[in-house]
Amino acid sequence: MRILTGIQPSGALHLGNYFGAMKPAIELLQQGEAFYFIADYHSMTSLTDAALRRQYTLDVALDFMACGLDPKRCIFWRQSDVPRVTELAWLLSTVTPMGLLERAHSYKDKKEKLASGDLDKVNHGLFAYPVLMAADILLFDSNIVPVGRDQKQHLEMTRDIAAKFNQLYGEVFVIPEPRIRDEVAVVPGVDGQKMSKSYGNTLELFGEEKALRKKVMGIKTDSRLPAEPKPDADHNIAIQLLKLVAPPDVALDWENRLKAGGLGYGDVKKALFEHYWDFLAPARARRAELASNLDHVESILRDGAQRAQAVADGVLSRARKACGL
Amino acid sequence: MRILTGIQPSGALHLGNYFGAMKPAIELLQQGEAFYFIADYHSMTSLTDAALRRQYTLDVALDFMACGLDPKRCIFWRQSDVPRVTELAWLLSTVTPMGLLERAHSYKDKKEKLASGDLDKVNHGLFAYPVLMAADILLFDSNIVPVGRDQKQHLEMTRDIAAKFNQLYGEVFVIPEPRIRDEVAVVPGVDGQKMSKSYGNTLELFGEEKALRKKVMGIKTDSRLPAEPKPDADHNIAIQLLKLVAPPDVALDWENRLKAGGLGYGDVKKALFEHYWDFLAPARARRAELASNLDHVESILRDGAQRAQAVADGVLSRARKACGL
Repeated sequence: MRILTGIQPSGALHLGNYFGAMKPAIELLQQGEAFYFIADYHSMTSLTDAALRRQYTLDVALDFMACGLDPKRCIFWRQSDVPRVTELAWLLSTVTPMGLLERAHSYKDKKEKLASGDLDKVNHGLFAYPVLMAADILLFDSNIVPVGRDQKQHLEMTRDIAAKFNQLYGEVFVIPEPRIRDEVAVVPGVDGQKMSKSYGNTLELFGEEKALRKKVMGIKTDSRLPAEPKPDADHNIAIQLLKLVAPPDVALDWENRLKAGGLGYGDVKKALFEHYWDFLAPARARRAELASNLDHVESILRDGAQRAQAVADGVLSRARKACGL
Repeated sequence: MRILTGIQPSGALHLGNYFGAMKPAIELLQQGEAFYFIADYHSMTSLTDAALRRQYTLDVALDFMACGLDPKRCIFWRQSDVPRVTELAWLLSTVTPMGLLERAHSYKDKKEKLASGDLDKVNHGLFAYPVLMAADILLFDSNIVPVGRDQKQHLEMTRDIAAKFNQLYGEVFVIPEPRIRDEVAVVPGVDGQKMSKSYGNTLELFGEEKALRKKVMGIKTDSRLPAEPKPDADHNIAIQLLKLVAPPDVALDWENRLKAGGLGYGDVKKALFEHYWDFLAPARARRAELASNLDHVESILRDGAQRAQAVADGVLSRARKACGL
């Protein structure tokens, strides 16, 4: 069983990414033949800074390997190192109905936000993105694609496109199945909303110590005095975060002390920072080691690309032959 | 100076193609470094028969070489043998405004013909076609692209897309210039309309003798008797065609005899067929020779692809570097 996952290089990863996507992705390595790629072609639809793209792409590689993605137990590569995915995207384009793409939520949302439909402000890459995503998936005969609820429609589009190609040119593609990733742990940001880069409320996994401490100490709290008992301590943001990064009994102990009264929020936050820092210590050390030998990281990605390429070549040659190229 | 021309593989070529596109293209070889490709990726937007695509693609190669395209004096290849053109198409997609593509005549025309805008009947390849065309052109630092009037807008789109990429990522692409091909010789079909596959009025270059003779003998004429003088003989379809395929004095002689009266249309048509058949005799012989050694044809195309690839690699590596891939 082949499991495919694409990771957008979109800047420093945070604790929300870790519990929402990285940890589940890394755990999934156990369940099949895993194909993981860093989606740098996709990043071009929204990021036009070349240096940042290079940086973010490297960051994804370092962050994922630091957090436990073992490149020996999966195929891990940079999307643009297997450029023939774009060839498959063209083949698929020619069987993809325009109506299907017009109905994509991601594009419709973007379009609706524009004043009087000024389509000159939307790039074609954004519109064509589901076709490249279909190529990403179909190029490796992927069976399973873990997706969030927001990506479910795109996977359905992949299935439609693959079925259309198979119908026109014969049975070429494996039809993939979605595996909807239910977000078990919603990670709160420092302001209590869901942790997300777009809310500016994140705790970075590999941020600088001083800046991170400041962020943790700035976690939103109410104005009750330390002495007051806080029966709602389980709703406290710092406690919720502590439950993610500290041993369960330790987190529970802090929660109970906050409930009982006599404990200030500042002390809880200090404890949170220490546990946060410790929680990430092994990953931080691995990351530093990887960062000190970027040639090694590069060779891992190149090796991944070679292995991915070998699979891709087989599928592409099937597809080309079927459609008379 | 680099001149680029793409040729759609769309079936047996006819005399209208010869004078309208092939002859000018072959003559252009003198004027610069010529890059000629058979656009089999493009054919996918309208043709979904794999065997026909293979056949038509080979036909273009045989027809053009038979008619005088010398692969030693140009780079001649099959588009899909340099698949990285699709990679450049993706890069360009991400800087191409949707508005630009929505305004393309070819797409607008197609869309307007649909009942109540049923976009499920138009494929995305047709919409994205100007982006792949831009990639075709920019991938080889082309300076000059000879186009018919109907393709002028697409070339302007290529210029816009290239300028946008250069503006975002630095000076990567050469901005190509169009060279509008004025159709000097309008070739009439057997019914007097412009010769075109869509009117079903064509004379194939390499058709079967008996079928071609029948087509020529079926050329539309009026009901005047042979004896009548025909002062409008220069408007006679057979005479017009004769002027294209016979020596000027011979054609003029037939025209004058028709003018004078005493000559039947049937005799003119018989003469036309003989001259038509002779006119194409050298090309027919070359074509037969090429067709008897398809391995040789294949090796010419492969060699062309290798030379095209070498140029493409340089341009692509510039583009990838500039945008941070």
